[in-house]
Amino acid sequence: MKSIFSENLKSPFRSDAEEIITSSVSAVLPDAAVMRALAGFQKGSGKVILLAVGKAAWHMASAAVRALGHVDAGLVITKYGHAAGSIPGVQCLEAGHPVPDEHGFQAAEQALALTADLTPDDTVLFLLSGGGSALFEKPLIGEDELQDITGQLFAAGASIIEINTIRKRLSGVKGGRFAEHCLPARVFSIILSDVVGDTVDMIASGPACPDSSTCGQALAIASKYGLHLSKQAEDCLHIETPKTLDNVENHITGSVRELCQAAANAAEKRGYRPVLLTDCMTCEAREAGRLLGSILKTHAGDGEKLAFIAGGETVVHVTGSGKGGRNQELALVAAQEISGIPNAALFSVGSDGTDGPTDAAGGFVDGAALAALQANGLVLSEVLQNNDAYTALKAAGGLITTGPTGTNVNDVAVGLIG
Amino acid sequence: MKSIFSENLKSPFRSDAEEIITSSVSAVLPDAAVMRALAGFQKGSGKVILLAVGKAAWHMASAAVRALGHVDAGLVITKYGHAAGSIPGVQCLEAGHPVPDEHGFQAAEQALALTADLTPDDTVLFLLSGGGSALFEKPLIGEDELQDITGQLFAAGASIIEINTIRKRLSGVKGGRFAEHCLPARVFSIILSDVVGDTVDMIASGPACPDSSTCGQALAIASKYGLHLSKQAEDCLHIETPKTLDNVENHITGSVRELCQAAANAAEKRGYRPVLLTDCMTCEAREAGRLLGSILKTHAGDGEKLAFIAGGETVVHVTGSGKGGRNQELALVAAQEISGIPNAALFSVGSDGTDGPTDAAGGFVDGAALAALQANGLVLSEVLQNNDAYTALKAAGGLITTGPTGTNVNDVAVGLIG
Repeated sequence: MKSIFSENLKSPFRSDAEEIITSSVSAVLPDAAVMRALAGFQKGSGKVILLAVGKAAWHMASAAVRALGHVDAGLVITKYGHAAGSIPGVQCLEAGHPVPDEHGFQAAEQALALTADLTPDDTVLFLLSGGGSALFEKPLIGEDELQDITGQLFAAGASIIEINTIRKRLSGVKGGRFAEHCLPARVFSIILSDVVGDTVDMIASGPACPDSSTCGQALAIASKYGLHLSKQAEDCLHIETPKTLDNVENHITGSVRELCQAAANAAEKRGYRPVLLTDCMTCEAREAGRLLGSILKTHAGDGEKLAFIAGGETVVHVTGSGKGGRNQELALVAAQEISGIPNAALFSVGSDGTDGPTDAAGGFVDGAALAALQANGLVLSEVLQNNDAYTALKAAGGLITTGPTGTNVNDVAVGLIG
Repeated sequence: MKSIFSENLKSPFRSDAEEIITSSVSAVLPDAAVMRALAGFQKGSGKVILLAVGKAAWHMASAAVRALGHVDAGLVITKYGHAAGSIPGVQCLEAGHPVPDEHGFQAAEQALALTADLTPDDTVLFLLSGGGSALFEKPLIGEDELQDITGQLFAAGASIIEINTIRKRLSGVKGGRFAEHCLPARVFSIILSDVVGDTVDMIASGPACPDSSTCGQALAIASKYGLHLSKQAEDCLHIETPKTLDNVENHITGSVRELCQAAANAAEKRGYRPVLLTDCMTCEAREAGRLLGSILKTHAGDGEKLAFIAGGETVVHVTGSGKGGRNQELALVAAQEISGIPNAALFSVGSDGTDGPTDAAGGFVDGAALAALQANGLVLSEVLQNNDAYTALKAAGGLITTGPTGTNVNDVAVGLIG
């Protein structure tokens, strides 16, 4: 198997880092994640209908059918180019993402037909992944107006929560309405999460999740931003979404929390005491690197093998024209903090295998990394100013290259004291 | 005793936070810190000469004389207004800070005279605190040129390490030269640290610390920045500083590490399991707040009382004209992360009792803080844009007001899960 590190990385932490990265990403691949979640699945005496929606829908459906052996009917709705063959008993449809299109609307109608007229003995196995918001939609108003309203909200600076509060009411499937449609059948929902913080009702606007937002809030938002609405759209805002759904079980899987947990388990197997710091990190990438690096500096003398784990999705404010990504920038800044410390290392990696517009998944640094890049004539402050972490890490042998992994549950950074 | 919190702070964490703050700051007050360090002091058979230099010099000297009962001679050199009465056997002098003045130079001459002609049986008890660099100086060149060279270095963007490498060679006391002067007497040095990372040779440019910088480095810096130097100054750069000093014992006390340790002890006494994250945090205040807040969010459901401790000195990049400081900004941003979590709180406090140009020492927030400031019509993003954390925290009852404490060993932030 090809190493995720370049040949010129000579670090005592190399094999530990490689093991932790590969086993934690494996644990959140759709197959493994769906298998885990299905452990709790019990079919009723009636039919099992599978509906998989999102960018990972094909992988999730394929894993589920393999695990269950059989479903009575099934439908996959995924992004163009994301269906990877046939699945027994399951129809695979592709549609537009991130901009919804007619194929998506038709597929949604098919999904609603497939899940209509069910009995209390039937079970809908609903597999949801990122992209589901665009790929699974039944607009209650004209598509042009839907697009126009979303545009008005974006332009006015509305928050994503505000936008969703409006959009749930303009949709026949969002905000719990899909699960309501399935009644009286049971809905067993498995959600592959790529949203930091795991709020079930946020992922694809929660088709199978009771909605906590209210008509009152929606009307207040419409008034706050002076939305221009047709009579039809205005009427939609007055129709309440389901507040309780007794027929639904939601299981989040493959989340950043599981990514962190898997990293902790892998680190523990290699003799480190794992310390989970956070699984919902959202700060500036470079500042996270500075703080995580300072944590390593503080504990380098503890005389204990430690693994500090921080998951989430940091941000980068681009000021230069260099090449890099949030994970690479985080690792690079940590290099400065741990420079010269022989028993410290840190890596940060995106679970999807792609960090920024680069072919790297993230970056690895140890106490020798800063000196290595200085030996290549690079000055850290200039590299950062130019957002050029890729070039710097490449010089220090610190690029992590996994290739696309087939999942996306955010990033994990791990700091090691050996 | 007056509370450090405003009356309108109603938080279940109020008394725990107050206890942790007051007991950790107390532990690093000069008195307590000097007492701890003096536990290792053994006088020789000769005289004990006390020299205390810096902003906390009076407090340190006063504590030392009380602990020892008697010194044979002594001198305090502190900032104008910082001597707080007479100390038996010790002369107290005040001088200019941060800009050195003639009183300081005269005081330094007196100190050198007091510590001249000693024997191997004599001991110099050297008490050093922040501000010592300006308050204890014997320039080897004219003061005007010294000021000019420092100005040239600042203007050219030289680092503080580069500046110190030059300045040590232009001084008769810095870079270990004071301890060399005391030979053959022993020097027992107690350093009250306000430098993140505790590098002994950085504090006041290390009068009693062997100097690791070299003449070669000094000359390279002079050439790198094209410094204009007189013949006399040029000659100074060729005279090496002491590289070993067998007569010196340096004890760092009252450092940010001790501040963190004291916070951990206090938290443990109140039933929290303390988790020391870092004692050398230097990142952006608001990003530290975001990351520390996310750590609390991650652990709020652990079912364990936890205290996460992060010490150091964060930075703020001022973009607005509001009122605040790094501790207040850190706490305020954390408020967003922990908003709505009933069992989480965070405070950040400067050990000197002064955070930025305000009368507050720092800020406290809990899960209700964000709602409290919103109820006062404040929008967090606008507050941050305007660097107006003071106003926002005041509205939420989250200002911490200790008054000046008489010490300065950086800041400590503590996140609590109750």
